[in-house]
This record gives sequence, C-alpha cells and structure tokens, in this order.
Amino acid sequence: MTVILGIDPGSRVTGYGLVRDTGRGCDYVASGCIRTGSGELHERLQAVYRGISQIVTAYNPITVGVERVFMARNADSALKLGQARGAAIVALAEHGLELAEYTATQVKQAIAGSGGADKHQVQLMVMHLLRLQQKPQLDASDALAIALCHAHHRQSLKPHGLLGMQRRAGRSRF
Amino acid sequence: MTVILGIDPGSRVTGYGLVRDTGRGCDYVASGCIRTGSGELHERLQAVYRGISQIVTAYNPITVGVERVFMARNADSALKLGQARGAAIVALAEHGLELAEYTATQVKQAIAGSGGADKHQVQLMVMHLLRLQQKPQLDASDALAIALCHAHHRQSLKPHGLLGMQRRAGRSRF
Repeated sequence: MTVILGIDPGSRVTGYGLVRDTGRGCDYVASGCIRTGSGELHERLQAVYRGISQIVTAYNPITVGVERVFMARNADSALKLGQARGAAIVALAEHGLELAEYTATQVKQAIAGSGGADKHQVQLMVMHLLRLQQKPQLDASDALAIALCHAHHRQSLKPHGLLGMQRRAGRSRF
Repeated sequence: MTVILGIDPGSRVTGYGLVRDTGRGCDYVASGCIRTGSGELHERLQAVYRGISQIVTAYNPITVGVERVFMARNADSALKLGQARGAAIVALAEHGLELAEYTATQVKQAIAGSGGADKHQVQLMVMHLLRLQQKPQLDASDALAIALCHAHHRQSLKPHGLLGMQRRAGRSRF
C-alpha cells in the first residue's frame, strides 16, 4: 500500500494531505496546514521547508502531487507564491521525492468530474471519497484533493490498472 | 575580518559573490554562477539549494545580502524567480544566516553613485572597488555588487564607523 502526499503551497498557508492507495480506492491518512506566521521572509520560508520535511519523515510518502500554478493574479503575489513553492519543492527533492504537478482544473476534474467545481464541492467530494465524517479545513481539503487526483492519474498509468509500484533508488517515477 | 556573501537569484542563473570586509574597504574572495540546467523543476531548485549550501560551507560568510525584486516583468517570470529565491533563501536560513534585501536601485546607488547605472557601469565599479584585473561574469558581478552594497550598509550602521560585528547564537544581525 502506497502513501501519497498532496501539497497546496501558499505564501501564508501551505495545505497538505496524505492518502493511502489500497488499489481499490484511497483511505485517509492525515491532513493539515503549515502556517508561515508573520516573521521575516527567511523564517516563513524555513517554516514551509521544515514543515514539509517533518511530514515526509513522519508518513514516508512514496510520491507527491503539487498544485501547478496556471495563472497567478499578479506579479507580486506570483513572486510570494513562487518563494513558498520553491521552499516546499526543495524539501521534497531533498527527501528524494519526485513530484507530479496538476492544475486546479485537473484536480477538480478528477475529483468532482468538472473543472468548474468550487472549493466547497471539492471539499464534499473529498469527504465522500475518503469516507470522512468531518469536513477538513479548506486548505487541507485542497491538498487531499491533489493527493486523490495524483492517485487517480497513477492508477490510470498502470498497465491493465494493476498495482505495480516501481520504486527505484529511493525515487518514485510517477 | 568578515566574509560577506551577495546573492542574485534567477530562475536560470543564480550569481554569487563573496568579499572580505577589512574595515578599511573590501577584498575580493570569490564569485561565480550556479546554473540550474534544463532538468525537472525540482532538480533545478535543488541545484540552487545545494549550490548555495556548498558556498556557505566553503566560505563561511557571516552575513548575506540578496537582491530584492521590486517589480517583476510579469506573473509567470515572477513565479519562476520566486521559486529560485525560495530555494536560495531556505538554504541560507538552514545555515543560520539572516539576510538583508536590497533593490537593484539601492545596489547601483551604493556602488556607482546612481540608481540609473547600467550593468556594465556596475561591473566596472565592482572591478575598481575590489581591484580586479579581469571582468567577472555579469551575474557574478551583480552578486559582488550586492555584497559590496551590504558591506556599505553594515558599515554605516556601526556606531562611529567602528568594527563591531555582533554575532549571536550563530546569527548575524546585520
């Protein structure tokens, strides 16, 4: 069974979600938010880097999905988001994890069947697919949706839909 | 004597420059470029992270100046630049280094006396101030200019211009 991590980086809050792919669906493992606080820039980026590093150490995911930024609002917010993404992705790379990127539209399409679904519809589908009794926080829910989307894409890449995880030299290919 | 690092992060090339502040001026120590290559995103960001980490280990700078992005060209380039900055700043933070940020205008003002100086004028002033016989590469020259700007600002913050480096718990304040 394969633990899959989903990451939704943000300049203030980075959501994370972990699911276990059983081959017949996914179980919930954990989710939450890394809040970067109000410190200096290097302290905020270090909070993202260390938070991701701790999650990888604690749950040992074999592969990671990260939200791809399709279109940032403006150059200033894109720079801030980029800095948080850089800190998160370096932490994943330092743990030998490769990552797959998905746009928000791809995630919504995979989870809710429509690229136009809103955050609350995604949240409800995440609850349904993972049989959750309580609503996760929105940022954590988005990260779980990314993990589920990544599980879905990995599944569809497998020959005949069979489970055949290939882990090579500490790296996963998908 | 204090080694000061200047960093000019970029999505393709990150320039670095090191100078030694003698209290009566600065001596050249080293400079160069970290090229991120054409690999996957996480490999490129890891190249920045590891490159910066190796430079800090090799030269043990006590403080760092980084170019601040005042206005990015567009959201897409801002995101890419932000990712490289995030990787570089996390590497500095993981070594316990605090950093000062300077806009390109501040750097030009400090080095060439005018915020409107072009890259080649900055390069010539860097050569003059550090008594270099050969032109450094442009990216490395910009990073050396940032290091010199940071040395200048630290000097002006000291009481009566005396050398009084305060290093606390592995961190420098300036």
